[in-house]
Amino acid sequence: MKHRVYRIAVHIVPRAGLLDPQGDTITDALHSLGFKHVQSVHVGRHIVIETEAPDALQAETAVQEMCEKLLANPVTEDFEITSAVPV
Amino acid sequence: MKHRVYRIAVHIVPRAGLLDPQGDTITDALHSLGFKHVQSVHVGRHIVIETEAPDALQAETAVQEMCEKLLANPVTEDFEITSAVPV
Repeated sequence: MKHRVYRIAVHIVPRAGLLDPQGDTITDALHSLGFKHVQSVHVGRHIVIETEAPDALQAETAVQEMCEKLLANPVTEDFEITSAVPV
Repeated sequence: MKHRVYRIAVHIVPRAGLLDPQGDTITDALHSLGFKHVQSVHVGRHIVIETEAPDALQAETAVQEMCEKLLANPVTEDFEITSAVPV
């Protein structure tokens, strides 16, 4: 079966309700720079993976498994996967 | 003028062609875990900002300015802004 390369982006964010000190620091810095209207900032990771797969669905399933096994911390983080785009 | 709160996500990624050692390390780790079809991984930051603004366009303009002044390194990073969504 012919494989194609798919590009998939993953967003990994601190679970809601957990402390996000990096986001709080950026919020304070933005206020100091004059961006007074900023209410909150949350910082996560944006990971772009290119992987070969027979179809988009299998590429997404593989990336879901990568998140569970390696990329995201299941205790403190949530992740979302964007749809697979052929490269 | 009445302000609303908008949520805007920003993706900040290493500029294409620059070294991404974190991405290379994750690629190796995924290969070790059996994900042999992974070709490349790039790691950036996913920042979600909630800010008050009169309309979506002005919220996006403010976030663009935040990226240029604080969030992104103009020498080594590119950023993209998603459209503003009312919260």
